[in-house]
Amino acid sequence: MKRVNIILMGFGHVGRESLRLISEKREFCRKHYCLDMHFHAVFRSEGAFINSSRLVSGDVWKRLQAPKEISKNPNWRTGFALDKALASCEPGVLVECTPSNIKDGEPGLSHIHEALERGWHVVTANKGPLVHDYCSLIEEAKRCRLALKFSGATAAALPCLDIALLSLAGTEILRIEGILNGTTNFILTRMKEGKDYDEALAEAQKRGIAESDPSLDVEGWDTASKIVLIANACFAKCLTLDDVRVEGIKDIPSHLLQQGREEGKVIRLLGTINREKEKIDLSVRLAVITGSHPLFGVDGTNKGLTLITDTMDSITVVGGKSDPRGAAAALLKDIIHIYHFHL
Amino acid sequence: MKRVNIILMGFGHVGRESLRLISEKREFCRKHYCLDMHFHAVFRSEGAFINSSRLVSGDVWKRLQAPKEISKNPNWRTGFALDKALASCEPGVLVECTPSNIKDGEPGLSHIHEALERGWHVVTANKGPLVHDYCSLIEEAKRCRLALKFSGATAAALPCLDIALLSLAGTEILRIEGILNGTTNFILTRMKEGKDYDEALAEAQKRGIAESDPSLDVEGWDTASKIVLIANACFAKCLTLDDVRVEGIKDIPSHLLQQGREEGKVIRLLGTINREKEKIDLSVRLAVITGSHPLFGVDGTNKGLTLITDTMDSITVVGGKSDPRGAAAALLKDIIHIYHFHL
Repeated sequence: MKRVNIILMGFGHVGRESLRLISEKREFCRKHYCLDMHFHAVFRSEGAFINSSRLVSGDVWKRLQAPKEISKNPNWRTGFALDKALASCEPGVLVECTPSNIKDGEPGLSHIHEALERGWHVVTANKGPLVHDYCSLIEEAKRCRLALKFSGATAAALPCLDIALLSLAGTEILRIEGILNGTTNFILTRMKEGKDYDEALAEAQKRGIAESDPSLDVEGWDTASKIVLIANACFAKCLTLDDVRVEGIKDIPSHLLQQGREEGKVIRLLGTINREKEKIDLSVRLAVITGSHPLFGVDGTNKGLTLITDTMDSITVVGGKSDPRGAAAALLKDIIHIYHFHL
Repeated sequence: MKRVNIILMGFGHVGRESLRLISEKREFCRKHYCLDMHFHAVFRSEGAFINSSRLVSGDVWKRLQAPKEISKNPNWRTGFALDKALASCEPGVLVECTPSNIKDGEPGLSHIHEALERGWHVVTANKGPLVHDYCSLIEEAKRCRLALKFSGATAAALPCLDIALLSLAGTEILRIEGILNGTTNFILTRMKEGKDYDEALAEAQKRGIAESDPSLDVEGWDTASKIVLIANACFAKCLTLDDVRVEGIKDIPSHLLQQGREEGKVIRLLGTINREKEKIDLSVRLAVITGSHPLFGVDGTNKGLTLITDTMDSITVVGGKSDPRGAAAALLKDIIHIYHFHL
């Protein structure tokens, strides 16, 4: 049995769900992967809960969710910093789930650097640090012989990177096309059914699919971030958001709207990675696709990715829970990849 | 650079394509995976071509395909047995591509045992040995700390096993459903378009999709073999073809035929793995599916697999070249998994 010390950073939807899922799966991981998951510290903005493997059992979990109750708990610390937590036990894995900030990558960027410096592996669902500074992070991880995994940042449970890097090993990937943002795909699906943009967005917000400020999604930046990460991972590049031609779904040109209304056609926001030898071309654009396109059936909040190769033709993968639980499952998978499969 | 000694056994469509593909990809594998692929011996029924890394360059390749010319080549040996080849260099990987024999698994079964006994890894596109004697082969490989990989036997380039074992690590797979046989899917697609069974089969045979004796495909045994392999790999079981309820496509009941003709419905031959705790239920059966089914769009010779899990919902993967070149690409991928990723 191998002990896996975990520090969880960030206690939003994904962080919370990761704590819950990994705790629920503790016995499963012991049985199937000989891994003993142990939460060394769980950081939320007000402080950290340390050194308890019973974090989600009954009332501890409830108290963890009700900050007022936490302060009475002997395992609760305020003023406890990440570097102290990283130094206070055998290195394990930092699960970085702070909010994604694509402007400067903080605070996740600093957390990841700190963890790598202290000999900790990192798995993250946070796109910010990676779109901002992919190459220096990957280089640092390599230099320290540590893993930096980010399945949860590319499309939660949709296994984009696994397929590209593992299933297609030995092929040359020529082109990748994806529907990678559930919010915009939901809005476009509703618009196909007759709603206008504002109605569809309002419904998405009401259902908790779109955020109150939906700009990162509807302006295409979330999709752009994901294709930057996928392209960098697949082609060992250092591309950033500046390298992507980005289009959103707010102002769909009327000729596209009209085509998209026709029978057997739909409008989709496609993230595309096109490769011509060493040149990689990235774009996020509205496209009208027909039934012959492998992503035609991907509707609602669903996601999908098509990879076109030289020797295996095209592989399309669709589905995977795209909510916080799906992201948490992707983080757990990354931890298992590091400790069980040594990937 | 790591040298990979390869013995290729079997020189039918898949074996031939494997020799060609791995040779073509030699520089690519050196550059991307630091692997130096070297063919130590290539066995065909009349003899073996040994110890040349120039097997596919120009006229050597042509001579290899024209048995009468081979005998003049200094690298050609008759009466050279596998055990001799296995013992005559540092152990590497046996690429087993002899014809699939689901009755007793031979001759592949003996080849795989011999290779493992001599310390060689095995990758195979041959279902026969694995459906016949999965557990003893896997146990033997484990005991010897060797890899036995069979992506090429489960659905060629469609990454069934990678997704199940790697991308879904940490989940519990509850159910798997697949369209796993290109020949039957092609026939059913043509029947939907109005042809009758005999016409559709004749077209498939004319196009080289169906074999002259198509019984393994049309009676459902090819699909059954694949789901036995997938179920055994996913759930560490020792199931055989005796554990599968198998239905073919030859005598489709008229009520199904009628439903399948309706708009928005299709008949498909589904291989299904249903799991209830420790009980695994396997079947191959005709089903009428509608647009809401994730495999609805899988037509022609295409294949697809849907995996339903506890924490990642359902993942569907579709596509992948399903001809000898796709199988060869799957074999190469397995070799890279063994030597580069240590999987």
